Amino acid sequence: MYSSKISAMLKKAGISIGDRVRVEKGGQTHEGILMPRAGESDELVIKLDSGYNIGISSAGATLSQLEKAPKKAEPAPEHYPRGEIAILGCGGTVLSKVEYKTGAAFPAFSPKDLFNAFPKLKHMASVHSKILFQLLSEDMHSRHWSVVAQEVANEIRDGAKGVIVMHGTDTLHYTSAALSFALANLPVPVVVMGAQRSSDRPSSDNESNILNSILVAKSDLAHVGVCMHANSNDDYAFFHLGTKVRKMHTSRRDAFRSINTMPLAKVDHRNGTVEPLMPYQRRDEKRKLDLQNHFSQNVGMLYSHPGIKPELVSKFADYDGLVLVGTGLGHVPTNAFNDKLANNLVPSLKSLIDSGIPVVMSSQTIYGRINMGVYTAGRILQDIGVIGNGADWTPETAFVKLSWVLGKEKKMEKVKELMMKNIAGEITPRSNYEETFIDF
Amino acid sequence: MYSSKISAMLKKAGISIGDRVRVEKGGQTHEGILMPRAGESDELVIKLDSGYNIGISSAGATLSQLEKAPKKAEPAPEHYPRGEIAILGCGGTVLSKVEYKTGAAFPAFSPKDLFNAFPKLKHMASVHSKILFQLLSEDMHSRHWSVVAQEVANEIRDGAKGVIVMHGTDTLHYTSAALSFALANLPVPVVVMGAQRSSDRPSSDNESNILNSILVAKSDLAHVGVCMHANSNDDYAFFHLGTKVRKMHTSRRDAFRSINTMPLAKVDHRNGTVEPLMPYQRRDEKRKLDLQNHFSQNVGMLYSHPGIKPELVSKFADYDGLVLVGTGLGHVPTNAFNDKLANNLVPSLKSLIDSGIPVVMSSQTIYGRINMGVYTAGRILQDIGVIGNGADWTPETAFVKLSWVLGKEKKMEKVKELMMKNIAGEITPRSNYEETFIDF
Repeated sequence: MYSSKISAMLKKAGISIGDRVRVEKGGQTHEGILMPRAGESDELVIKLDSGYNIGISSAGATLSQLEKAPKKAEPAPEHYPRGEIAILGCGGTVLSKVEYKTGAAFPAFSPKDLFNAFPKLKHMASVHSKILFQLLSEDMHSRHWSVVAQEVANEIRDGAKGVIVMHGTDTLHYTSAALSFALANLPVPVVVMGAQRSSDRPSSDNESNILNSILVAKSDLAHVGVCMHANSNDDYAFFHLGTKVRKMHTSRRDAFRSINTMPLAKVDHRNGTVEPLMPYQRRDEKRKLDLQNHFSQNVGMLYSHPGIKPELVSKFADYDGLVLVGTGLGHVPTNAFNDKLANNLVPSLKSLIDSGIPVVMSSQTIYGRINMGVYTAGRILQDIGVIGNGADWTPETAFVKLSWVLGKEKKMEKVKELMMKNIAGEITPRSNYEETFIDF
Repeated sequence: MYSSKISAMLKKAGISIGDRVRVEKGGQTHEGILMPRAGESDELVIKLDSGYNIGISSAGATLSQLEKAPKKAEPAPEHYPRGEIAILGCGGTVLSKVEYKTGAAFPAFSPKDLFNAFPKLKHMASVHSKILFQLLSEDMHSRHWSVVAQEVANEIRDGAKGVIVMHGTDTLHYTSAALSFALANLPVPVVVMGAQRSSDRPSSDNESNILNSILVAKSDLAHVGVCMHANSNDDYAFFHLGTKVRKMHTSRRDAFRSINTMPLAKVDHRNGTVEPLMPYQRRDEKRKLDLQNHFSQNVGMLYSHPGIKPELVSKFADYDGLVLVGTGLGHVPTNAFNDKLANNLVPSLKSLIDSGIPVVMSSQTIYGRINMGVYTAGRILQDIGVIGNGADWTPETAFVKLSWVLGKEKKMEKVKELMMKNIAGEITPRSNYEETFIDF
């Protein structure tokens, strides 16, 4: 937020955030987009054409408007006949050229917009589209997952042959896991996708990710999954199982990786192929979708680390459930050898569990299977009732699954039973296991 | 803990945890090791020779002792002349055959024990050894890091040509980062190592990890690093920079990976080679070690996730510092678009920072560089003072570094300056950057 002084100055000049402006001060002139600001500030922030931001103290500066910001468009009405593939927009980089510049959101999402942006799309499918919300994906909440699942179900019931969910990449894998649990008995493909680089950058991955996602949406793979670049070239993409995928790099286009399993399929829009790499559930449009989109909004995650304090565990006493992101095979400090320098989380974890709050183990190693039977710490944690022994889920999928299970069940025994049952591919059978670290 | 009933039964029969026992009940007989138990229980737990545990209700069971547990040994006195390579023991799987069976700790760690266990070692180096503590590494605390750093410094001052720290693998990379910061101006190699599989398993990696570590300790690479299996064969090992390494699999022998950089060297004891893969600091025994082993014991970590509650941030108000394990390029929920379903951590983070508690960003993607300049959320977080823009550290190294910096400095500006300065290779220069995802 700008200071009241700057706000008054902007108001007087009729200038809004996002406008192109000129700032003159002390003989120097800067032109660029006026940026928003967090916190009270007397400094103007301008995004220069170079892409860099510059902060200019407002004292003695004169400001003039060069160009109004483009207006925030209303979701466009449907001009096209209802297409076979439904595209649902949740925000994110994939279609957010303008957000990148000013922080403001400009949905541009009608089929016409899409066909203009990606002309090849027109030859691949008839589509229709709807904006659900326009968000940075880190702002997604389990409340949003319920909405997305409901909207996907509506599209499928209305006859969509496949659904694409466009999404920011930060928490895309949380949402793909949520949809995997919420959309049981799925008749058609549901493809969650995004872009790591926005469309105004030459290296943008949005076009090929969209074209590959369309291909999957039309394919025989009736799964919820994530379709993103498979490597750092503009080559093929992978379609990853929605519960077994994770963003593994801050910026690379091939950031999304299958964890502890192979991707479901290799996808290449250039030759129109979707090549399955794993057994899969086939499309069956007569299969009746079973929507289960209730999620607890009150599940926590706790990352274990050296010296983590037992009192921190107690802060989760008013939560519905807790996912531990433990170390190694599934450990947190237990002070098993009574070392005088060590901490011990066991009493506070036991007290959470005894009060009816399920606690689920996952590992910060990301790869591999939880095994709480090998070392003393794991056995102690199992004895007090920590759930998860034998699971090879990611911390994120464990969190989403616990949120989903607690949306259905509150009784500890039922929660435990459902958590340990493979619902949507999130627990890989041991027989498939040894190959799971291959592409790491 | 067993119930008072079982405790009395054990006392009467002179049986202790760890003893080999026979349990007879209802015509069935089981033999194995009597295991310890967490929580009040009326069930005896026996580890069978198959490796599986069995729980037997004590009602109507008779218990007899077959063999006493081996006694917990005192640290053995030094019978050998002082060797050139110092081996310091902190516990863990690497030498814990017995712990694996019963949960009890049996240090067996004199040079004689080592030479008996690994006969090839005798031909490679003269060693001496000391047990610092016997711990599961998840019980390590920053207080332990200070002790280990002090002991390594003592060994180097006493003339050791190289130091090996044997350590459990769960938090081995936290300790290697801690030693990297604490041991400035290092004259000789310091090798932190462990084993993923204990020595009683045919697939144990402890022998080759020890032999490869000895080779590094004798080498020219004057760095703190981690020496572990490079692949799933009994092939060569990698020596990873101590600040850039992470356990990336719960169970594989090649679980340790360099993140955002190449390993320092490839190591092969079979042909005695240490092949540098990166520029390195050469051994110089005249270089004067600068020990800086103060660490804050009061740093927290917070893993961001959909729906994370702002109130949780406030629970860190009495901490010295906080590391955020954010999403993507370094984000947490900011509700940048005022979505009614979203949460916003900014006010509570700002209030922490304004009260003088430094907050540092890292990413749950593990790989890649923090960039808080691309999206609105990152810019908001930078504006309120979140530290870390441009760093490519792991969450664990960010945590260790903040603990170390806060052991020296409390003033926010000084903390920020030190955090953003590359001290021990933890921030990779951008020019080296594009190759960093290669072995992923």
